[in-house]
Amino acid sequence: MPGLDEFEIIARYFTAHEGNDVLLGIGDDAAVLDVREPIVVAVDTLVGGVHFPPDLPAHSIGYRALAVNLSDLAAMGANPRWATLALTLPEADEDWLQAFASGFFELAERHAVGLVGGDTTRGPLTISVQVIGTTTGGRYLTRGGGAVGDDVYVTGTLGDSAAALPLLARQSAPTAGEAELVERFRYPTPRVAAGLALASIATAAIDVSDGLVADLGHLCRQSGCGALIDIEHLPLSAALRSVCSVQRAEDFALGGGDDYELCFTARPEHAADVKAALARSDTRLTRIGQLVAGDGVVCCRGGQPVPVAVSGYMHF
Amino acid sequence: MPGLDEFEIIARYFTAHEGNDVLLGIGDDAAVLDVREPIVVAVDTLVGGVHFPPDLPAHSIGYRALAVNLSDLAAMGANPRWATLALTLPEADEDWLQAFASGFFELAERHAVGLVGGDTTRGPLTISVQVIGTTTGGRYLTRGGGAVGDDVYVTGTLGDSAAALPLLARQSAPTAGEAELVERFRYPTPRVAAGLALASIATAAIDVSDGLVADLGHLCRQSGCGALIDIEHLPLSAALRSVCSVQRAEDFALGGGDDYELCFTARPEHAADVKAALARSDTRLTRIGQLVAGDGVVCCRGGQPVPVAVSGYMHF
Repeated sequence: MPGLDEFEIIARYFTAHEGNDVLLGIGDDAAVLDVREPIVVAVDTLVGGVHFPPDLPAHSIGYRALAVNLSDLAAMGANPRWATLALTLPEADEDWLQAFASGFFELAERHAVGLVGGDTTRGPLTISVQVIGTTTGGRYLTRGGGAVGDDVYVTGTLGDSAAALPLLARQSAPTAGEAELVERFRYPTPRVAAGLALASIATAAIDVSDGLVADLGHLCRQSGCGALIDIEHLPLSAALRSVCSVQRAEDFALGGGDDYELCFTARPEHAADVKAALARSDTRLTRIGQLVAGDGVVCCRGGQPVPVAVSGYMHF
Repeated sequence: MPGLDEFEIIARYFTAHEGNDVLLGIGDDAAVLDVREPIVVAVDTLVGGVHFPPDLPAHSIGYRALAVNLSDLAAMGANPRWATLALTLPEADEDWLQAFASGFFELAERHAVGLVGGDTTRGPLTISVQVIGTTTGGRYLTRGGGAVGDDVYVTGTLGDSAAALPLLARQSAPTAGEAELVERFRYPTPRVAAGLALASIATAAIDVSDGLVADLGHLCRQSGCGALIDIEHLPLSAALRSVCSVQRAEDFALGGGDDYELCFTARPEHAADVKAALARSDTRLTRIGQLVAGDGVVCCRGGQPVPVAVSGYMHF
């Protein structure tokens, strides 16, 4: 459908969602935003056929493109405010654009994120979203603040999205558990409220995009310590356990990406505060281990280290 | 060359250029920037084979990817401060990456722009850069501030990049003029200093990325007026005039994109201020016409309107 040019696409699908504190929004050379405090900036790209199957529903693609970025801000304990969208499309299919925009703005409106700029270009399907957040009182979380003795926690459940991957292309009717996993892949929940609640409690945080072992490994490296995690404490959803053995579910939870849960650390004496903060944000919380002297992530079962062969998702 | 993963690419080529006021830079889930005044945000994507020939030297691709974004900030009269880079690559070729990064940072350092975040992914060559600038005293330029009677100006010369396009793939040795045009395409000059100098003088501004008639048309629409421009006043470079007829050169200047000059308007009583501001920023200045009642851009020769068949570059 070659009928729409880039200006029509922007006017029809991507305006009038600008949010607050926008001095100048879409339609000029740049946007002007009224900020008076440190900003938090993240960018993530989704490439069709690499980060998602090309036939994933456009509504889900739009939602996920924003969700993976909001997840980065959640891991910083930041408050998401604005986004820009660089959308490269093979063709200007109006149904696709309508569904994409609808998914994007469904999530944007839930978090009061304004779309303030963008660029639409022709080419292979590639979506880069940049989000800008603000800090509360200048506080934010990093990967590097953990210390030996800190508890290691995760939000939600792990492994669901990885288990969904082989199900996405299946033609047969899914079971209830399978359908739930596919929904988790299509519509991950960025843990924004949890991140904000943790900003003054947690010592370090990262979002689980490449897999727990890989991402906790980044946190350990930047915090200058190691981690011991208890495989038997991994939070596995009933849906995940309904489609595979416990052993396989644990593998998904340790190595699978795309969950967009938070993995974070906190001092043991703040355990009650952590619990209260996550309860306020209505987010499931599981303590899975602790930071220890050394480096790397060691997985234990019944108190004994067990070898796990997982590596984070590598784009190259 | 599949040897480099995304973390190695970032560590090897894209760190240690973070700039000032960076509270937290590359290597965490997001960057934290210390701003205390309105920010100006722009994003532009370059797709290989769409916005540039795929065999354009990587040094030029890196330079241009930032230049087109700095040009947007220049049109706002903003001071560029930070950038993020979303780089999608078919393969991790180290020579290509080295040259790309070298071109990107050559321009970044010239303008003290820090690279504070990014994402490298595998896929067809696509580069999205987002830039964040700050305003001086809250002042910025828009496309919508022009009024009937304002003078219309452009910086530099027009049409050079469009004339260079057919020369980029030529194997034979170029003439001096041809080589100069190719250089203009490869290394456009974002008019940052001119934009800053104009922030308190000009009434409206836009950068010439899609072609003068198209871009001045956007400025007119948002300013609620029309424009009369004098074809005989178009600034044509000696290089452009050396490779084609004056008529053809004028066509390139009116319709060709990729020049990244500024087109702006100012009150006639500020003509001396405009001249002084552009002289301070060492930028060629040409008055090409004025804003008039009505709508659209009318081109004149010897005071008489002449039809011109140009349309801006359309991505779809």
